[in-house]
Amino acid sequence: MKAAVLHNYGQELKIEDVELEEPRKGEVRVKMKAAGICHSDLHVIDAHLPLPVPIVLGHEGSGIVDAVGEGVASVKVGDHVALNWVPSCSKCYYCKIGRPDMCDEASKISLMGTMLDGTTRFSVDGKAIHQFPLTGTFSEYTVVPESAAIPIRKDVPFELAALVGCCVITGVGAVVNTAKVKAGSTVAVIGAGGVGFNAIQGAALCGAKQIIAIDIIPEKLEMTRQFGATHTINASEKNVVSAVLDVTDGLGVDYAFEVIGRPETMAQAYNITRKTGMTVIVGLPAPNENVTINAFSLPSQTKTLTGSWLGQGNPSVDYPKLLDLNAAGKLKLEPLVSKIYSLEQINEGFDDLKAGKNIRGVIRFD
Amino acid sequence: MKAAVLHNYGQELKIEDVELEEPRKGEVRVKMKAAGICHSDLHVIDAHLPLPVPIVLGHEGSGIVDAVGEGVASVKVGDHVALNWVPSCSKCYYCKIGRPDMCDEASKISLMGTMLDGTTRFSVDGKAIHQFPLTGTFSEYTVVPESAAIPIRKDVPFELAALVGCCVITGVGAVVNTAKVKAGSTVAVIGAGGVGFNAIQGAALCGAKQIIAIDIIPEKLEMTRQFGATHTINASEKNVVSAVLDVTDGLGVDYAFEVIGRPETMAQAYNITRKTGMTVIVGLPAPNENVTINAFSLPSQTKTLTGSWLGQGNPSVDYPKLLDLNAAGKLKLEPLVSKIYSLEQINEGFDDLKAGKNIRGVIRFD
Repeated sequence: MKAAVLHNYGQELKIEDVELEEPRKGEVRVKMKAAGICHSDLHVIDAHLPLPVPIVLGHEGSGIVDAVGEGVASVKVGDHVALNWVPSCSKCYYCKIGRPDMCDEASKISLMGTMLDGTTRFSVDGKAIHQFPLTGTFSEYTVVPESAAIPIRKDVPFELAALVGCCVITGVGAVVNTAKVKAGSTVAVIGAGGVGFNAIQGAALCGAKQIIAIDIIPEKLEMTRQFGATHTINASEKNVVSAVLDVTDGLGVDYAFEVIGRPETMAQAYNITRKTGMTVIVGLPAPNENVTINAFSLPSQTKTLTGSWLGQGNPSVDYPKLLDLNAAGKLKLEPLVSKIYSLEQINEGFDDLKAGKNIRGVIRFD
Repeated sequence: MKAAVLHNYGQELKIEDVELEEPRKGEVRVKMKAAGICHSDLHVIDAHLPLPVPIVLGHEGSGIVDAVGEGVASVKVGDHVALNWVPSCSKCYYCKIGRPDMCDEASKISLMGTMLDGTTRFSVDGKAIHQFPLTGTFSEYTVVPESAAIPIRKDVPFELAALVGCCVITGVGAVVNTAKVKAGSTVAVIGAGGVGFNAIQGAALCGAKQIIAIDIIPEKLEMTRQFGATHTINASEKNVVSAVLDVTDGLGVDYAFEVIGRPETMAQAYNITRKTGMTVIVGLPAPNENVTINAFSLPSQTKTLTGSWLGQGNPSVDYPKLLDLNAAGKLKLEPLVSKIYSLEQINEGFDDLKAGKNIRGVIRFD
């Protein structure tokens, strides 16, 4: 079978024949139907996310269960599944307290490029090929732990289902689960892309009064309107803090979401919230980056700075829920897919992503 | 009447004759009975909190209502009151949403050293003397807005009532109102002083399983035990992060409270919380100080950094409640009072505070 392999940071992915082991106990083999091309994959290529090479990237995906290992109970051959790159062990402290997004086992292997037991299922000539932890969706088939294959309704197009496990749950969940945005509130979202659009439509779903989209690309700002943005601010043209104060009676917003991962925009998000406001960091910086905020404002303005990972979601509950909301017309997934590529066109997909042309490029495998 | 006046930063307070205007509309004159000597007063003397001089300091106090201005309804002559340095206008956005601790009017004048209308009630030879905003308790009498004089039960000794409006509500409220500590949780408090002891007994009141007190003074650490600390860590002897991990099964604490106001200990508080943990900054840094934390940990560990001001309290509701808890034996106020001074001994009180001898020195006016 074919897979796209990154051999060296900064280079193009190489489409080549790769061997895939049978699913072991508690594992599932998935025949891939669609895979999203996300900035996080690009961060690995650019060596910002230090995963080991050679590696099969891709962590957004959907497909059909093709084989199951011993003991697998929640999915069967033929089920449609959306893949989940934050599986959970169900045994650690965080899984037990209902926070599978913080699973200790998943954290441990998050930068290892392997399955939970530290091994890989991909190989070439007997040499192990790493995989985007627990997924590796840029491949015709992949093997994942049972908790990484979430069964979904069969009437959803695969290219939409491929996105639910990353940009959709991350954006919507940050608003719904982490911030629990209250109806009538004011919200700002810094970064208009796949995750940002979903944060915006999550805020609309929650009944936010004002939703202010902030970015530097006019076309993307324009796109935010269809997801529910009521105001847009081009950060390359205006002082963001002043512009936000202008449209919020001088108060600032109740909630700000940063979905880029840059310390400067994180601090900016904090600075545009009002007293008692909450800033949620969704964007992923490099592991060693720091963010600096005014210390006096913490006690004197009682602002909150927090973060959200995978939308603080529980995939087996939330993926089906998000797809039901899409079916009910309350969440738009269709406009997120900018362009369809074949696996062979994957490098073109990354070039388009880098050039800011795509929200989500999606690979179709048929 | 006599008051203690700071004429120049870094100098001793001077006990002198000061004139006090009659209470205006909505104001109350209080015959002071007791006043606490707090680090925040010291911060003004040291010019860390830039209030204007000459000024009558003191923001913790209790006394008896001596005269009321036009329209005052909530207190009458003869009532015992505890003073509140964060009065509220009841008209701004924050007062309306039930957050009087964030009152815009109080914020505006917080560094002005005046009453809400920008004027002062103290003077010498016709020259205005500032006052610790809305209080100025280092004086035989003071005039404050009605919302700064909270009526309290008459069976509480004045020296205990003097503390309720600052270190008690600030420490207990940060735990009860801001963090809403859940029974069975693990808690750390960095800084064993008036506020820290109250955070500790607030955590005990909430049913925390472990309460870890962190400081560098052995005698203060020993004192934390009587307020409910289950563990103590001397930060001058041990690595705080390792020591906290040692007693929390390697997880870190659910909640950390920083009550010192130093950026380094703020970051330390953040670093000793577990994934999903909450850090509450209670200590007051200088207005221009910054705090730096690892940016990656915000999304990847979904920790929360927030702050608390006046324990996110509502003084007219919370002061009586705290004093009732004391009467019921559930909050200890008695051990907070280290030493009683006369107004004439106030500089000795500050010397003892600087030397780390006192939790709260209290001035008695009779």
